[in-house]
Amino acid sequence: MKQIYIGVIGGSSCSGEIAKIAYTMGKYIAENGWILICGGMGGVMEAACRGAVEAGGITCGILPGDSRRQGNQYLSYSIATGLGHARNLIVIRSSHAIVAIDGSYGTLSEIAFSNICEKPIIGLQSWHCEPNDKSGQSLFSKEVETAEEALAALRQYVKTE
Amino acid sequence: MKQIYIGVIGGSSCSGEIAKIAYTMGKYIAENGWILICGGMGGVMEAACRGAVEAGGITCGILPGDSRRQGNQYLSYSIATGLGHARNLIVIRSSHAIVAIDGSYGTLSEIAFSNICEKPIIGLQSWHCEPNDKSGQSLFSKEVETAEEALAALRQYVKTE
Amino acid sequence: MKQIYIGVIGGSSCSGEIAKIAYTMGKYIAENGWILICGGMGGVMEAACRGAVEAGGITCGILPGDSRRQGNQYLSYSIATGLGHARNLIVIRSSHAIVAIDGSYGTLSEIAFSNICEKPIIGLQSWHCEPNDKSGQSLFSKEVETAEEALAALRQYVKTE
Amino acid sequence: MKQIYIGVIGGSSCSGEIAKIAYTMGKYIAENGWILICGGMGGVMEAACRGAVEAGGITCGILPGDSRRQGNQYLSYSIATGLGHARNLIVIRSSHAIVAIDGSYGTLSEIAFSNICEKPIIGLQSWHCEPNDKSGQSLFSKEVETAEEALAALRQYVKTE
Repeated sequence: MKQIYIGVIGGSSCSGEIAKIAYTMGKYIAENGWILICGGMGGVMEAACRGAVEAGGITCGILPGDSRRQGNQYLSYSIATGLGHARNLIVIRSSHAIVAIDGSYGTLSEIAFSNICEKPIIGLQSWHCEPNDKSGQSLFSKEVETAEEALAALRQYVKTE
Repeated sequence: MKQIYIGVIGGSSCSGEIAKIAYTMGKYIAENGWILICGGMGGVMEAACRGAVEAGGITCGILPGDSRRQGNQYLSYSIATGLGHARNLIVIRSSHAIVAIDGSYGTLSEIAFSNICEKPIIGLQSWHCEPNDKSGQSLFSKEVETAEEALAALRQYVKTE
Repeated sequence: MKQIYIGVIGGSSCSGEIAKIAYTMGKYIAENGWILICGGMGGVMEAACRGAVEAGGITCGILPGDSRRQGNQYLSYSIATGLGHARNLIVIRSSHAIVAIDGSYGTLSEIAFSNICEKPIIGLQSWHCEPNDKSGQSLFSKEVETAEEALAALRQYVKTE
Repeated sequence: MKQIYIGVIGGSSCSGEIAKIAYTMGKYIAENGWILICGGMGGVMEAACRGAVEAGGITCGILPGDSRRQGNQYLSYSIATGLGHARNLIVIRSSHAIVAIDGSYGTLSEIAFSNICEKPIIGLQSWHCEPNDKSGQSLFSKEVETAEEALAALRQYVKTE
């Protein structure tokens, strides 16, 4: 059976409301038998990992620093890259589909890389952007407001993978 | 005398109108004695390098591939990274200030990295974005419509460097 | 309980004799409850992963390319870095201790990085080097001829970790 | 006219005797109109850059850290990669031919990468290694004892480039 990796990207700190959404998203990912992959740090990443692990799922953290110790406590497996934000690309390249939840500039770089790598990416209360050239380039394959809607979208993208 | 490196970021293909703006921007960078650094490829990068070199300036290309041969013909110096889009971070880290001209997802990743690295970045007819949290986070230190305005802004940021 | 990651490095092609040693090494790593981490490709890496997986263990491959598909078939989990041989550092940074089995230049780069990162590294029928300055710098924490001896050495290093 | 980049690799600290050899090597590189590229730090790198710059040449430093400030004072141009020792590959990929002078583990990783990238590499009082398999794999295209001999070898490799 093919393993499916779902990337969850978002800020290393976030509001309690966003953390709840991330927790639910992580739970849904685990319940569907998908592996959750992320940058391994706090905030959205930690909340999503907690949701996944508490639902019996597997989480994988691609850490920016030299040491595994900085990762959050809900990582089943972790990788220490020592590459700083260059590790953001690795999270994207290793995902079949991605959910961006809220997020700041690191998340925005990952959203950009998702598009460069042509991966399906769902925006869940995340950035809103438009390019200069009115070309209709959009950041997201789909924009949603809830973890339920994000799950429905993920199921579609994963099926056609 | 301290050397100043100005990053020019933008698409590897672009309209003729955008190429003219990039050419002028490159010329201004050279006339101010600054070094132009970029991703070394075509489009905005090539037009800006041409403007700089034809004005007697120095250009430096940080290439994504394994070989120097893929760089545009207006590079005074070039570096072959073999890192693909991970090289985008190197362009930003090596710049004192950055001008984003138009651009697609690669440019958006560099805009995000400029903010992560806390570098002054000027948007010249580039992306328009806002984060989810209405926090007032902006992509750019300043948004402008012409190369002249971008030059005026660069002078301010470089002075206070 | 703390997870221990053991890196296995070696050529992406190897003789049948070396493959047997790598298989046994992988088996020993799994039997000790350690996670096997490697570059994810063929040869020594594949043989070691097969040994580990057939003994019920967990293996993790840090792939050089853009896609998970190039990894060997005995990877429990895999990461697509797109960084080429720059991924060699990630394998080392993510290991508590490393076993080098035979190997060519890629392996030599990983042996060098193990020393830079001050990780315990065991040479199992691998490179023999000496620096110019007769400083007594050695490539390995210990040099051995069999998987049994490598296991004994690993146990020591892992205990004091 | 085609630019030729010669990589100089070696320790970030070294003996006075090795520094003299590195200085002379840098001078020779500049006198032949080649660009000297290196890791941009102290020791062998600094001595070689000084030799090149005092002979009127151009030097280029590919720095490991986030900031250009850490580079030695004899760099005509510098690049801040923020990638730590992963930047070692960039030095090699950007060189037409390489001279390894003395050196420790960082240098050894660069020697390994030179072979992976199939670049001509000259060992000047540097590491001595042999692989396990007696395959005759050697670290260097040529091993020499003096900067004069290294120059003679470089001329051959650069001619056939």
